[in-house]
Amino acid sequence: MRVGLDVGGTKIDALALGTDDTIVARTRVSTGWGDAAVVAAVHDAIDALAVEGGFATLDVASVGIGIPGLVDAAGGRVLHAVNLGVSELDLASAVRERLPVAVAVENDVKAAALGAGSLRGDAHSMAYLNLGTGVAAGIVIDGGLWRGARGTAGEIGHLSVDPNGRVCGCGQRGCIETFCGGGAIARAWGRGGVLPVLDIFDLAEAGDPLAVELRAGIAYGAASAVRCLVLSADVETVVIGGGITALGDRLRDDVARRLRLEGEGSAFIGALRLDERIELLPAGSPAAALGAALVGAAHLHTHLHTHEGAFHG
Amino acid sequence: MRVGLDVGGTKIDALALGTDDTIVARTRVSTGWGDAAVVAAVHDAIDALAVEGGFATLDVASVGIGIPGLVDAAGGRVLHAVNLGVSELDLASAVRERLPVAVAVENDVKAAALGAGSLRGDAHSMAYLNLGTGVAAGIVIDGGLWRGARGTAGEIGHLSVDPNGRVCGCGQRGCIETFCGGGAIARAWGRGGVLPVLDIFDLAEAGDPLAVELRAGIAYGAASAVRCLVLSADVETVVIGGGITALGDRLRDDVARRLRLEGEGSAFIGALRLDERIELLPAGSPAAALGAALVGAAHLHTHLHTHEGAFHG
Repeated sequence: MRVGLDVGGTKIDALALGTDDTIVARTRVSTGWGDAAVVAAVHDAIDALAVEGGFATLDVASVGIGIPGLVDAAGGRVLHAVNLGVSELDLASAVRERLPVAVAVENDVKAAALGAGSLRGDAHSMAYLNLGTGVAAGIVIDGGLWRGARGTAGEIGHLSVDPNGRVCGCGQRGCIETFCGGGAIARAWGRGGVLPVLDIFDLAEAGDPLAVELRAGIAYGAASAVRCLVLSADVETVVIGGGITALGDRLRDDVARRLRLEGEGSAFIGALRLDERIELLPAGSPAAALGAALVGAAHLHTHLHTHEGAFHG
Repeated sequence: MRVGLDVGGTKIDALALGTDDTIVARTRVSTGWGDAAVVAAVHDAIDALAVEGGFATLDVASVGIGIPGLVDAAGGRVLHAVNLGVSELDLASAVRERLPVAVAVENDVKAAALGAGSLRGDAHSMAYLNLGTGVAAGIVIDGGLWRGARGTAGEIGHLSVDPNGRVCGCGQRGCIETFCGGGAIARAWGRGGVLPVLDIFDLAEAGDPLAVELRAGIAYGAASAVRCLVLSADVETVVIGGGITALGDRLRDDVARRLRLEGEGSAFIGALRLDERIELLPAGSPAAALGAALVGAAHLHTHLHTHEGAFHG
């Protein structure tokens, strides 16, 4: 059984993959705050999966964990996962203390990219653009994650697309994230609410000036992200996911309309047919947890080979 | 002998690579206007190289041609090379009519990227950013050109980084090219001159307001291009070349200063140390012609393998 966990700020989305790559169990548990609570929640999730799927934790061969923040994938360490109260944690080793199997850790957006590619059945050339609290993308080429030289591949949330734009949490002005990141949007909206983005979409239709501006900005930011991914890495498809995509077709239509509009104003951009190259990850998609399971399973192979090497060496 | 030609708007930079990969001859000839004249100039260049290097054209094993415009590399065709008066030309076939060897055609910026990587001796993870009349980049990963899904990898000149910026030839506003492309800069300057960019740098130092604005824009545009290449494809190094780099260290210092300034305002950007990851292609570098020769030589191998296949098939 290969377990995949998508650790979010409030809950863990967990699934178990059977030998034939089908999802045999899926469940959700609450996430804790701080190192020990996160590790405990990971074990809670695995236990809950075992109950759900009717298997023993002894049957777990590998665990893959997708987690927000800076991740040292090779070392299984998490750095600066601020939403979880984790500043530096050797998560893989901590989990292995109670469950001595192959454990791999990956940034949650990168894991989701891998999972989205797997779910599409075509991970030849795609990017997964996550519009969550922050904005980032994962690039999948020929079935594998594109890591780049220093781990910043796909960090397009902090590309400035407006020198006179709002100040970003990163210190720059007009970052893509200031337009279409949930955190920045909520701050710019400033009226509270459980789902500011939903309020913004609704009130924009009612003619509220700030809502109209912010809604247009969301489409502009997401369209800029798509343009950037195609004009630099040149991926064929951009799959869009993350909290903001709970808006569904209303968001998709806005972004596609913006891309079409840009294409009408520029033959160069028009020829790229960007509006036809975006897809929305369906609500409730297991992409992130599935990608985490795949990362864990890949680690299992490395693990076994090393082990075999030790026997023969 | 493997010949490489960098076909520019006014001249062809030509070189011949010997068996040990050293440049045995290098020369320049004038480029013609229109299909027939371009083909004739290619042959002139090869003839001139043969004289220069003391070899017979019969010794030429392959010809690689780097040329501005949209290139169908697989088919050896050139589309929309507007600076050469070529709208659609099967250049490889046309050259082979008089010299029946392996002939490959590549976009000039992509060829230069390959050549720059080869000259650096490290083409593991780099981009070549060309600041010429237009702006584009070529990405080289693990020694090979990164082509992407539809051939737009590295076309960052047409990423908009200012929604209120000047209108670009492509129809969008505030494209990177409007800031640091020679054509757009000359139009915005509007005072003529043989080397507008040089005038702008000089007069900016004398306090001319338009010159100050445009000079700052050049650094902003180039810095935006570097940021984009690192935050999407995540290349380790960005080598900057093209006509504008005739300014040498004055340009390099401006771009590095701008990147440092952005890094001081943003811990995220600062940690990337972008100012330390740029290099200028030296004046007179044979990168583009060398890259073309490598493209031609690679084609030679494909050619031979296909030939062998036919014998054994």
